[in-house]
Amino acid sequence: MFRPRSVAVVGASGDAEKLGGRTLFHIKELGFAGRIFPINVSSREVQGLPAWPSLRDLPEVPDCALIVLPAKLVAAALEDCAAKGIRHVQVLSSGFAEEGGEGVAMQERLVAIARDAGIRITGPNALGSISPPDGFFGTFSSLLATARPGPGRIGVATQSGAYGSHIYAVAGFRGLGISRAIATGNEADLDVASCIDYLAEDDGTAVICASLEGCRNGDRVRAALLKAAAARKPVIVMKVGRTEEGAAAAATHTGALAGEDRVIDAVFRECGAFRASSIEEMLDIAYLCSVAAVPPLPGVGILSVSGGIGVLMADAAVEAGLPVPPMPPETLSRITEIQPVAGGRNPIDTTANLNGRMHVFEGISQAMMEGAELGSLMFYLAHLGRNEERFPPLEQAMAALRRRFPDRLVVAVMTHVDSIRLRLEALGIPVFEDPTRAVRAVAAASRLRDLQAGAAAPPKPRRSGVRLADARNEAAAKALLREAGLPVPPEHACATAEAAAAAADALGYPVVMKILSDDIPHKTEVGGVLLGVADAEAVRAGFSELMRRAGAVRPEARLDGVLVAPMLRGGVETIIGTQRDPAFGPMVMFGLGGVSVELFADVAFASAPLTPERAGALVDSVRGARLLEGWRGAAPCDRAALVSALVAVSELAAAEEAVESVEVNPLLVRPDGAFALDALVRVRG
Amino acid sequence: MFRPRSVAVVGASGDAEKLGGRTLFHIKELGFAGRIFPINVSSREVQGLPAWPSLRDLPEVPDCALIVLPAKLVAAALEDCAAKGIRHVQVLSSGFAEEGGEGVAMQERLVAIARDAGIRITGPNALGSISPPDGFFGTFSSLLATARPGPGRIGVATQSGAYGSHIYAVAGFRGLGISRAIATGNEADLDVASCIDYLAEDDGTAVICASLEGCRNGDRVRAALLKAAAARKPVIVMKVGRTEEGAAAAATHTGALAGEDRVIDAVFRECGAFRASSIEEMLDIAYLCSVAAVPPLPGVGILSVSGGIGVLMADAAVEAGLPVPPMPPETLSRITEIQPVAGGRNPIDTTANLNGRMHVFEGISQAMMEGAELGSLMFYLAHLGRNEERFPPLEQAMAALRRRFPDRLVVAVMTHVDSIRLRLEALGIPVFEDPTRAVRAVAAASRLRDLQAGAAAPPKPRRSGVRLADARNEAAAKALLREAGLPVPPEHACATAEAAAAAADALGYPVVMKILSDDIPHKTEVGGVLLGVADAEAVRAGFSELMRRAGAVRPEARLDGVLVAPMLRGGVETIIGTQRDPAFGPMVMFGLGGVSVELFADVAFASAPLTPERAGALVDSVRGARLLEGWRGAAPCDRAALVSALVAVSELAAAEEAVESVEVNPLLVRPDGAFALDALVRVRG
Repeated sequence: MFRPRSVAVVGASGDAEKLGGRTLFHIKELGFAGRIFPINVSSREVQGLPAWPSLRDLPEVPDCALIVLPAKLVAAALEDCAAKGIRHVQVLSSGFAEEGGEGVAMQERLVAIARDAGIRITGPNALGSISPPDGFFGTFSSLLATARPGPGRIGVATQSGAYGSHIYAVAGFRGLGISRAIATGNEADLDVASCIDYLAEDDGTAVICASLEGCRNGDRVRAALLKAAAARKPVIVMKVGRTEEGAAAAATHTGALAGEDRVIDAVFRECGAFRASSIEEMLDIAYLCSVAAVPPLPGVGILSVSGGIGVLMADAAVEAGLPVPPMPPETLSRITEIQPVAGGRNPIDTTANLNGRMHVFEGISQAMMEGAELGSLMFYLAHLGRNEERFPPLEQAMAALRRRFPDRLVVAVMTHVDSIRLRLEALGIPVFEDPTRAVRAVAAASRLRDLQAGAAAPPKPRRSGVRLADARNEAAAKALLREAGLPVPPEHACATAEAAAAAADALGYPVVMKILSDDIPHKTEVGGVLLGVADAEAVRAGFSELMRRAGAVRPEARLDGVLVAPMLRGGVETIIGTQRDPAFGPMVMFGLGGVSVELFADVAFASAPLTPERAGALVDSVRGARLLEGWRGAAPCDRAALVSALVAVSELAAAEEAVESVEVNPLLVRPDGAFALDALVRVRG
Repeated sequence: MFRPRSVAVVGASGDAEKLGGRTLFHIKELGFAGRIFPINVSSREVQGLPAWPSLRDLPEVPDCALIVLPAKLVAAALEDCAAKGIRHVQVLSSGFAEEGGEGVAMQERLVAIARDAGIRITGPNALGSISPPDGFFGTFSSLLATARPGPGRIGVATQSGAYGSHIYAVAGFRGLGISRAIATGNEADLDVASCIDYLAEDDGTAVICASLEGCRNGDRVRAALLKAAAARKPVIVMKVGRTEEGAAAAATHTGALAGEDRVIDAVFRECGAFRASSIEEMLDIAYLCSVAAVPPLPGVGILSVSGGIGVLMADAAVEAGLPVPPMPPETLSRITEIQPVAGGRNPIDTTANLNGRMHVFEGISQAMMEGAELGSLMFYLAHLGRNEERFPPLEQAMAALRRRFPDRLVVAVMTHVDSIRLRLEALGIPVFEDPTRAVRAVAAASRLRDLQAGAAAPPKPRRSGVRLADARNEAAAKALLREAGLPVPPEHACATAEAAAAAADALGYPVVMKILSDDIPHKTEVGGVLLGVADAEAVRAGFSELMRRAGAVRPEARLDGVLVAPMLRGGVETIIGTQRDPAFGPMVMFGLGGVSVELFADVAFASAPLTPERAGALVDSVRGARLLEGWRGAAPCDRAALVSALVAVSELAAAEEAVESVEVNPLLVRPDGAFALDALVRVRG
């Protein structure tokens, strides 16, 4: 698809205003060195090239065919590809599933033909692919009329053609080179994940930018991202539909089911990819990673000719999660020996003009690198990057710094001319104009280091051995979860008031009493819970009262009696659960009870099953996790019990496909253990 | 300072490498039409202009003098200004307070000379000022060697020279014109607030960009921002030192005390200014506001040739707080009549190529404007902005749209060439390349509309009439707050166990008991609080226990007995407080109790005193405010009582300068009122 040695353009036209004509024109005129076969039913010559009436007539089997015909003619052309033995086809024609109705069936027909013939296709409704290093521009994108992306090491895979061409257009204007770019359109066969998979092993690609709109096959996305992470190729990925409004629009647009957006966050994170929220942010990070390696440590040093901009950058660093370690006193002495008016501890403000004072610049930057644990050193140099006369000494100092600390990231922030930028890039130094964007890109690169190091597929689920049949009320749900390894306090399902009183006597007072019914999943809604029931008499009265309330509100419900449980106090209420994402399968959810989840959305997701390490990381990723360490003098909670409960629930969800969702709310975590106080399990069928 | 008719350059040199030489060169060569007087002790001609040995020798009194001498010579030059009757002086020389030591005294000397002579000065350590529409570039900024900002309507005021020149440099590269720009340096006299004040009444300035580093005089900042808001000039302002690390660096750098950063947020908001977090964001908003008016409504319509980019923009809009209202069915019918393949409800995805199809574009955009409450309509047009051949029909459609809906904001997002951008700007249509940045700028402009409409100075404080002498323990603090109008539950300071038991009998059980001591502000630290004390006997025992505990932990403390109060349950715990900001004076703080403030920093600030409206807005600005409406079926809390407590506390803090801080924690808000359960008041002296 990306680097064919020979290519057929089916629907090639002499009129470059037509899509088929424009596609041929781009392939022919923009530097492609391979063989080109225009296919046109009526002309034997198109745009000065010999043309053939059908693919079947070609003198050889081209590596790839691009089909740019009206929708109705595409199936026949694809059959011609099959007959000829062509294995790779890009269907650029539109008018298929994206238009609904008949288009859906027409697309299914293409899939069937391709499957039978062993052909891999992109599209329909694709934009084609480009490979600037090979001079291959197999697309009708109108962008190429006025701008052409240059060759480079950034690979781009998107579903939407406009999205993709926007990315490579802007990359081009910024002087960022592209290795390959492809837009997969309707994804009847190959999808963005397939393209990421290709780019992960493509030697010409060092960084991957990808954009997903819908997502149908989560496993393929995971596998492709993990492959890139294993190859230590940074992947910056976007997925639109973050908000409810956006997700609704995306669902209309792609037909894919909208899952929970935080699931996407979790999967990208687990698979080592950085999720960007704007195209510009994506390209900033891709730029940085295509020029330099990710920094080996998170700490950042800032050396600025402006105190104010230095502070701006320190703020941006801290807000983006990068430590800005202060230089120790001995380093500060070293610095003021070199430049007496220098101020600050990090950022270091050189105050005076650095013009041409190479030894000052070199001395301070070396002192900083040696003074603290820095993964990156960032220079703010005002307008020196526009000054060809005065810049060379600074350039020499930066080159010396790179030689001396080859594994650290060095970034220049300044207004600049292209010539100076290109020379710094050749030294492995990215150049930015906006200080804040520079810092955010460094933070993202630093995050990518951690993400790639931690990237791993979820472990294989073990068989649970749990009997799933009867989990429709709380007692059944808890019995099931207990079997799965979740700690549940001793409690008794009681069919009569006397049984309830006996159970309470055995447990000790006070107790909690809850109505038991398959038909009443939300007990509080019917007043079905009594807390702090103090003695046997109150238990008997409570039994009648709960049955009465439930019967009054839900006369149709079958009541199975009352659950009697010990009244546990203290500790921290947490919520753990699982759900099945339509694309990514079973996911675990963790949050704290009370206002944390509902008001502050302080909740995190992870793929199931969890290892204990991943469960621990999941716990730490919510802000409220601090409560577990002992809040306001309270004893620390039993974190190990919480982790083991998360692992147990996650293994159940992963092993048993019939488990639709689990919600344990609350799981009370105390210094002496974790206790599932209420639970709901939904089992399919 | 900005638009002199005549200017003296003191320290003018023939050598353009020297700062004085460069400053003169810029004034002389870049289009200044006024009279220029170089001052040089030894030469009678400098850079081809007649020169004078001293300001005293000049044949006339120039409007402004720029002093670019070594620090030690500046005072004498300023005295010459005084003798000559020059009223405006920019001291560009460095080596004053920013270097500490002797420099501080030298700067004080300048201030004294200026004050005595009625001279207003900027600097020392200033960068000078520019006014591109007048061709005046009174600065030594090295930027001008390679780039010069063009004339326009954006005014820039910064403290830091490098910060300022970065802003106008980048503005220049982007084709944004500048009206005036100034950097105030050490601010010995004039500060950024003074410059905002000037720009607010300057006819040539439509939008103001300002950057503060430290802030010494909060009243002047408030007044200047309010003046700009009253003139309906959008102000976009930055203040570095947002984070702890940044604030520490800023304090080193400027010597100004670092206040609470959220106080700055509050003041900017109250005075109608938008706070930007990056220079690029600031310029995006300034650009939008210099080309178009702020949108009259928050709703945004999105019309995109790409489904994916449309969703990206919808996400960005929702995340930035802009509603994206779906089009009603009748509008959708109208749209699909015009363009059958169009999809979505807003964003509208036109899918097919719009090239040259003016009626489609015009029809859909008009239908959207008429279909929902839109303040803005944003178009994503891929690469059409680079296509001079195909763009004109779209341009005509946009012009028609602007004529028909002149008060709405229309924004084009596309890759583009300058010629097309300039033509759209002439129609009042801002053009952006990055979709996300465009949406964020529209959101900021929309926010500016609300901010400016709501801008108002805090009301004048009324006299409180409260006696301040004795507020060192909880009982005294509550007595003081009760006098100030805060609701405090009935409670009794009891010096003996018997008095405590009698008080508890009168209040009814259970009660709360707390140790009373001027020397123990944090009672829980000594175990000095007993909750739910059930009867008279327990009260007596409690009294002894509390006295014992306090005596054991703090043997030196004077104990005044025990406070006995009713045990109030239910409701929502809030925290209200006041503190004095070093620059902005008394500020009110509001948050919710429990984890909200401590884990989620869900707390908001406002200037004191509050009106009831401002107090209500303060309450609504914390996320947890939803709890007050009745959480999980609870009855709604008495919001009016909370508002009135906030007003009362704010008036106390504003009226009584001796009140350093008030902390009411918790103020319990229940359906039947608000109750100060604990309080601490710090009074100076």
